[in-house]
Amino acid sequence: MQTMHKFNTDLEKCQANFQALTPIRFLTRAAEVFPDRTAVIYKDRRYTWAEYSDRCHKLARALIASGVERGNTVAIMAPNVPAMVEAQFGVPLSGGVINCINIRLDAAAVAFILEHSETKVMLVDQQFAKVARDAIALSGMPIPVIDIADSDAGSTDLIGKIEYEDFLESAPRTVSVRYPEEEWEAIALNYTSGTTGNPKGVVYHHRGAYLNSLGQIINAELAGRRPVYLWTLPLFHCNGWCYAWALAAVGGTHVCLRKAAASDIFAAIEQHQVTHFCSAPTVLNFLIAGKPASWKAPDEPIKVVCAGASPPVSVLQQVVEMGFSVLHVYGMTEMHGITTLCQSQESWEGLDLTERMGRLGRQGVRTVVADEMIVCAPDSYESVPRDGKTIGEVMFRGNLAMKGYLKNPAATREAFADGWYHTGDLAVMHEDGYIEIKDRSKDIIISGGENVSSLELEDVLYTLPAIAEVAVVAVPDEKWGEVPCAIIDLRPEHVGKVSEQDVIQFCRTKLPGFKVPRHIIFEPITRTATGKLQKFKLRAHAAEVISARKA
Amino acid sequence: MQTMHKFNTDLEKCQANFQALTPIRFLTRAAEVFPDRTAVIYKDRRYTWAEYSDRCHKLARALIASGVERGNTVAIMAPNVPAMVEAQFGVPLSGGVINCINIRLDAAAVAFILEHSETKVMLVDQQFAKVARDAIALSGMPIPVIDIADSDAGSTDLIGKIEYEDFLESAPRTVSVRYPEEEWEAIALNYTSGTTGNPKGVVYHHRGAYLNSLGQIINAELAGRRPVYLWTLPLFHCNGWCYAWALAAVGGTHVCLRKAAASDIFAAIEQHQVTHFCSAPTVLNFLIAGKPASWKAPDEPIKVVCAGASPPVSVLQQVVEMGFSVLHVYGMTEMHGITTLCQSQESWEGLDLTERMGRLGRQGVRTVVADEMIVCAPDSYESVPRDGKTIGEVMFRGNLAMKGYLKNPAATREAFADGWYHTGDLAVMHEDGYIEIKDRSKDIIISGGENVSSLELEDVLYTLPAIAEVAVVAVPDEKWGEVPCAIIDLRPEHVGKVSEQDVIQFCRTKLPGFKVPRHIIFEPITRTATGKLQKFKLRAHAAEVISARKA
Repeated sequence: MQTMHKFNTDLEKCQANFQALTPIRFLTRAAEVFPDRTAVIYKDRRYTWAEYSDRCHKLARALIASGVERGNTVAIMAPNVPAMVEAQFGVPLSGGVINCINIRLDAAAVAFILEHSETKVMLVDQQFAKVARDAIALSGMPIPVIDIADSDAGSTDLIGKIEYEDFLESAPRTVSVRYPEEEWEAIALNYTSGTTGNPKGVVYHHRGAYLNSLGQIINAELAGRRPVYLWTLPLFHCNGWCYAWALAAVGGTHVCLRKAAASDIFAAIEQHQVTHFCSAPTVLNFLIAGKPASWKAPDEPIKVVCAGASPPVSVLQQVVEMGFSVLHVYGMTEMHGITTLCQSQESWEGLDLTERMGRLGRQGVRTVVADEMIVCAPDSYESVPRDGKTIGEVMFRGNLAMKGYLKNPAATREAFADGWYHTGDLAVMHEDGYIEIKDRSKDIIISGGENVSSLELEDVLYTLPAIAEVAVVAVPDEKWGEVPCAIIDLRPEHVGKVSEQDVIQFCRTKLPGFKVPRHIIFEPITRTATGKLQKFKLRAHAAEVISARKA
Repeated sequence: MQTMHKFNTDLEKCQANFQALTPIRFLTRAAEVFPDRTAVIYKDRRYTWAEYSDRCHKLARALIASGVERGNTVAIMAPNVPAMVEAQFGVPLSGGVINCINIRLDAAAVAFILEHSETKVMLVDQQFAKVARDAIALSGMPIPVIDIADSDAGSTDLIGKIEYEDFLESAPRTVSVRYPEEEWEAIALNYTSGTTGNPKGVVYHHRGAYLNSLGQIINAELAGRRPVYLWTLPLFHCNGWCYAWALAAVGGTHVCLRKAAASDIFAAIEQHQVTHFCSAPTVLNFLIAGKPASWKAPDEPIKVVCAGASPPVSVLQQVVEMGFSVLHVYGMTEMHGITTLCQSQESWEGLDLTERMGRLGRQGVRTVVADEMIVCAPDSYESVPRDGKTIGEVMFRGNLAMKGYLKNPAATREAFADGWYHTGDLAVMHEDGYIEIKDRSKDIIISGGENVSSLELEDVLYTLPAIAEVAVVAVPDEKWGEVPCAIIDLRPEHVGKVSEQDVIQFCRTKLPGFKVPRHIIFEPITRTATGKLQKFKLRAHAAEVISARKA
């Protein structure tokens, strides 16, 4: 409610001084300001910003002509090819809501999404023709498909009635594209893979997408040298953390990639003078392993914006020496992607490398467009002390939070309880106000009344060179309630040479007794289609294995 | 009006996902993220961001305790000293609206502003104690004054009951600061000096101030190397183009200056490693004239954001050689400051220096947060062709436009007629979509039905080395309706050596006949307190002189 006074009298909003915030406005500006700059590179294709904008507008007009109305879902299942980058603007410009479907999902999961989102039209890259056809069949919905053909797709299947390029050419010239009527309108829909139950549809708004796009420019310093951005991060993750929109705001160049293998990354860097890319920490490992013999560090470091668990110090150190600068960030689908960054401090420059890398690997502080963040006791909302030890839940409040979950008011209410978005992630806050994620709240191990962070254990175990991969979960224990159990995938050359006792003994030298894993299981670790650990499944599996051992 | 569909159902705004946009939120973040970085430097004083934030909060609490309520005007009359920088946050945090008064105004003009704005409290730097005291007396209002004492003020007058530092210390600890209830609330009030009639009070909103602050970070690349910003631009111009707020968003350093003389600028650059400052083109002349013998170009150019008429190519060239990079921008009080920038293009790099500098001196393209700009016929709103010749009026639409003029609905309606903010500035649009301002609409000279740009004439005349300053205005003419008349201030060494005929002859070699000035008046040029040419006054004066000559 506004207090009435002279500054609120005869000073109303009007068309001249108020417009809906939307990132799609960046596109027409880029076409005007940078018409001849390269917007998109893919194999031997090149589009300037004028051409790219034209293609996005054609997509929008063709979608409108095919019946898409405001608030209709337009799904796309594609890797980071030009059509996928174009859809980020083309679908919203049609008034539709873009739903980028995770390409690692199976037909059943895709069918669920198509049904739940009431998908009106679907764009399908040939590589995913089979799963899309099966999903549509499962859904029983008559969803028209626009095929995206590509000789590199590894498939020549065409499951729709029209190919993408023909669809663009079919666009009537006289149809007007649609800008949002309000900035609170939906721009995108992203299904979370979820660790339990059915996926939830996270609804993005134009306001949040606009603000987070500007935020990304500031976070990753995209406004300085003209950015050449390599698409290693799948666009189906939070619309590529809003980078497709952010690049339009600064007239950068998208370098598309069907697959983000190390060889492709290095080739693109060499060929296109890539300045920025985003990645999970695993990509840093790829870079180290795949470094070409001829590699030379570039004059100016290549900025890698890296989200996920803190990369090990040695990994950070190696990529920095290779000429990359790593910006560690943290966020989630529900917050339009990136919400915190590990802002580097001048005072760290004097620290020794290990100490410095340790600081750089934390999740850090809220970005400038993320209004409020607390790490708190989930019942009292009281902030944890800045001791680097006390664990609390990370919560956010502000314009980056989603509209809510589509057709799921109960889940929305729960997520936004008491005016805070509850991330479910557990973190400590260090003395300098930087947060460090310790665990997902549901994966914390409570042993003898003490909280044990499975992440901390995993970090310690990863320092053992014999270990390729490890996941720590709780298993039931008569005495302690729960005890930590480590599932370990040994490197091939160490299989059979490392015993459970060796591992436990090693942990004893590094950790207090209650944190030492009581059980070790040597076996490969199962992940979801998106590469996520589903700890609730691993927990069930571990419980079975351990119970069988005892029997 | 929103269309109802599933994406607008059960997905309302709430405290978790919607907060009022306001730049004052940047302050608490800066205090948390950059607590030990230097926020403010003035003479031998230094405040970190933690200290600066604390001082701003104290100012807010002290103002609240002294009776300031939401929507009250808090005026400040001060040069770019720390109190002035602090007031940019302290006043809005009290719920008050900050009114930075032009320090070059006389008591009568200040009195008008105090009355019209219903000023509740006034902060006065000692340098302006006399004019403030006289203005308050003239207003007849019992406005309490907080004196800002400074040994460099050139005055020891204290006209209020409390000094600024004591006022901060008087702040009760228990009072809560105020965030805006809505982002459409007023944050600042800026009186335009105006070329006719009484000044108008331009009301800024939190939304526009927030967006333009983010815009400035992108325009001037403030997010890269940690910015050290020198306050050459008076903060009473559009709240320093939103830079006080923008610097908080990136944790930069304010270097305060009571006066922006060349010697002070060079001293600050050397002492504090200044990276950025803003200026009028005249400051570029100061830099060239005042270059110290020991000057060395810095490793990385110092960014000068420069608004106003295009600087002459030779001036641009010289400052670039000195190690400055000039970003030409354009804006106005009514648009929260900067609204366009001359975005540099790669394709210009191959051009010869004169050609390149000519392109860089244009007003350019809209910034990324300025939604829409047209150059059009003021009656039909039809855009002019991109021919670099046809003159039209510059108009803007979007979130950077003011709320309106305080207590002046008629002027607000006129300014926002037909949903566009009418700048009154006349420009051409070049083939590349860049605008170039040619004149204020009221200052165009219409001679024999042809439009003559007084600016173009001035540019030509400035290439004559004998000329120190020139202003071209229209004078009445029986035959042609109007003809151009040049008022010329010759450099001392040329006085008496250059004739009217010399000047006219020179122009004939450079311009088509109808553009050649018919009259020349040799005399110094009168400017307003803010250094603006009031062409309506010059016109009246020139008409008198010419008419007397004929008689």
